[in-house]
Amino acid sequence: MQTLIWNNLTETEKQQALTRPAISASSDIKSAVENIANLVSNKGDNALFELTEKFDKVKLESLIITKSTIEQATKRIPDDLKQAIQTAKNNIERFHQAQQNQTVDIETQAGVRCQVLTRPIQTVGLYIPGGSAPLFSTVLMLAVPAKIAGCKTIVLCSPPPIADEILYTAELCGVETIYAVGGAQAIFAMAKGTESVQKVDKIFGPGNAFVTEAKRQVLQQGTAIDMPAGPSEVLVIADEFADPDFVASDLLSQAEHGADSQVILVTDSVVLAEQVEQAIERQLAKLPRKETACQALAHSRIFIAESLEQAVEISNEYAPEHLVVQVENARSLLDQLDNAGSIFLGAYSPESMGDYASGTNHVLPTYGYTRTHSSLGLEDFTKRMTVQELTPQGFKDLAPAVMRMAEAEQLEAHKQAVSIRLAKIA
Amino acid sequence: MQTLIWNNLTETEKQQALTRPAISASSDIKSAVENIANLVSNKGDNALFELTEKFDKVKLESLIITKSTIEQATKRIPDDLKQAIQTAKNNIERFHQAQQNQTVDIETQAGVRCQVLTRPIQTVGLYIPGGSAPLFSTVLMLAVPAKIAGCKTIVLCSPPPIADEILYTAELCGVETIYAVGGAQAIFAMAKGTESVQKVDKIFGPGNAFVTEAKRQVLQQGTAIDMPAGPSEVLVIADEFADPDFVASDLLSQAEHGADSQVILVTDSVVLAEQVEQAIERQLAKLPRKETACQALAHSRIFIAESLEQAVEISNEYAPEHLVVQVENARSLLDQLDNAGSIFLGAYSPESMGDYASGTNHVLPTYGYTRTHSSLGLEDFTKRMTVQELTPQGFKDLAPAVMRMAEAEQLEAHKQAVSIRLAKIA
Repeated sequence: MQTLIWNNLTETEKQQALTRPAISASSDIKSAVENIANLVSNKGDNALFELTEKFDKVKLESLIITKSTIEQATKRIPDDLKQAIQTAKNNIERFHQAQQNQTVDIETQAGVRCQVLTRPIQTVGLYIPGGSAPLFSTVLMLAVPAKIAGCKTIVLCSPPPIADEILYTAELCGVETIYAVGGAQAIFAMAKGTESVQKVDKIFGPGNAFVTEAKRQVLQQGTAIDMPAGPSEVLVIADEFADPDFVASDLLSQAEHGADSQVILVTDSVVLAEQVEQAIERQLAKLPRKETACQALAHSRIFIAESLEQAVEISNEYAPEHLVVQVENARSLLDQLDNAGSIFLGAYSPESMGDYASGTNHVLPTYGYTRTHSSLGLEDFTKRMTVQELTPQGFKDLAPAVMRMAEAEQLEAHKQAVSIRLAKIA
Repeated sequence: MQTLIWNNLTETEKQQALTRPAISASSDIKSAVENIANLVSNKGDNALFELTEKFDKVKLESLIITKSTIEQATKRIPDDLKQAIQTAKNNIERFHQAQQNQTVDIETQAGVRCQVLTRPIQTVGLYIPGGSAPLFSTVLMLAVPAKIAGCKTIVLCSPPPIADEILYTAELCGVETIYAVGGAQAIFAMAKGTESVQKVDKIFGPGNAFVTEAKRQVLQQGTAIDMPAGPSEVLVIADEFADPDFVASDLLSQAEHGADSQVILVTDSVVLAEQVEQAIERQLAKLPRKETACQALAHSRIFIAESLEQAVEISNEYAPEHLVVQVENARSLLDQLDNAGSIFLGAYSPESMGDYASGTNHVLPTYGYTRTHSSLGLEDFTKRMTVQELTPQGFKDLAPAVMRMAEAEQLEAHKQAVSIRLAKIA
């Protein structure tokens, strides 16, 4: 890890040090994904079968996972893992249940009733990547709030062979249909619908560069997506009271995600910085994903700040996805912290807790999007409508203001919609 | 207006009848906007001066509107208009103030504290189009919630010459800086920043095809925008008890917005449908924007439904921006209504009321996006972060579940971040 003393950097160097690498898809990926889009839209299910055979090396008879397949998978899950998943599900449910939208129903002036109503998005599609590690925790993070929101139809796509843990968790969370299809083709199938795959209103979930590009393309064509994607990242603020082993373990748990993971330590203690580097060396040795973690660490940075205030400024400027705060009184910094996806306060709140089971959502904005985007929550599965109802008297009272404004905006028909009613009341 | 009996249509005809015209920007517009992007990014303020001279035929000395210019504009606004604007502002403030986000702060299990914190988006840019009609009502709709949300910096761009009403309303609502720049160049200036123009985190506001394309392009590059844009639209559900004059006036107030406006009447009464058509003829005669309204009406439709239930189904399927309900007991339909931006209940709630002064926001999803997107509200000027803090005991209790799940996902460093702490507690 490169160590930089913040105050020794020029403004340009500071900006560079906090700049993430460019992530826009190559033109190769873009055109490959466009081809897949065309195939799916022209050939429907047949395209999905072909692409699954080509990319996943699996020849399917049906895209839809049967109930008996799910039952068999369920039987194979060890009881202790089932319990762990249930514990996580309970906490995630409690936290997202608590996010129920406030009802707004007020009179802005006498006889002018205005409301905000929240409605579930009707049909949502969840994408879960394949690969060696079955990301069933992401199933919890997507399906639990979808269910609480009241989405009528929840479907899930994942490339075959789908891990038992994913099938089990999806079933547990009330996912209606699971499709054995992955990659860009899964995204287009859910966006447009095929003979087998249900068309959805909004698509959620992580994926590789092809999936990300496919989500970008369907967004252009009117399907909503959860949020823009980027590599996962953590920023740890630590002071001399932090345990270097704890800090190192948090940095490493981010680094193992991928070679492109962003890992940053900001501390006002040079001693701690050195201790953390040593602890990383020690802990790294034991990790199966050592190589991935090393690649991520190669472009990671330690910033030496002159104070915790400056550390907070650096964090707010970087706008991290995960922000771990290991300082003497972590909560005291909370009011100053801004632009973070999820904040982990104190020595016993490692990122792993939120990744799995504390109850917060692990789907978070990356790549600086925490400046403008929210941590995934119940709201992302709903939308708000407004309502207004005026009594005849409320209408009469407000009519002059509306007519005067419509006149000034030269929208005579808007004015007429008021005057025509006024004439009939009076 | 074309009248169609819903039950006589085939499924394909029904879909076609509810399909909006394609709105993607032409390649000419795309490349023109890309050129503007390059100019602004290479030449900064100079590009803005040049493009303003070229497109707006105004040679500026400064991009920033001075306080004395605003003071002079304020003096020219008639008192009755000032009062009307103040009335609207009060109602919009009350309604958006009522949208304050719920605080979530719970223990998901003993010793595991989880929170949702809401923070304002720091810097927002508002765009207000130019043209003959000064859209100062949109200034209210954007600046009022930005101020309530607590956005630190609120700037506004509008092409010169900027109407007095826009300057006055912006100042009234606490906009910090007003720039005399419009079009795609204004969007890129706010997204990237120039010598004069403040870089912003999120851009709000309507515009022509060039502005819409510029917003699409900056979104790709990481600047947030309010919502996808499309032509304005209204759907009116009316029954035999509706006043045909009122219904006609609501359809016309939408039709005058632009030739591409979408105007739909759904009714279970053939008699009413005929009366509305006659009323439109009568009212149209008096309107200055008659030609625009006629163009919009040319592609507008009346659907005859077999019942109000079917009318509701058609509306939910179309997913209109504005939904006016003029039936005997309008509120009784509310629970079944879904997929609308703003709903206007009853005879005395014409769209004009919400467009200007009832308190609801007139920035609404169009083009079917009400299926997944919300009416603009306080939330759009804020973002949510989550926080978790575990006590040592809370951590110990949850640790086994997290370690078991991390193990199953083959993320050993995630497990290690827990086990290393457990070892030091025990």
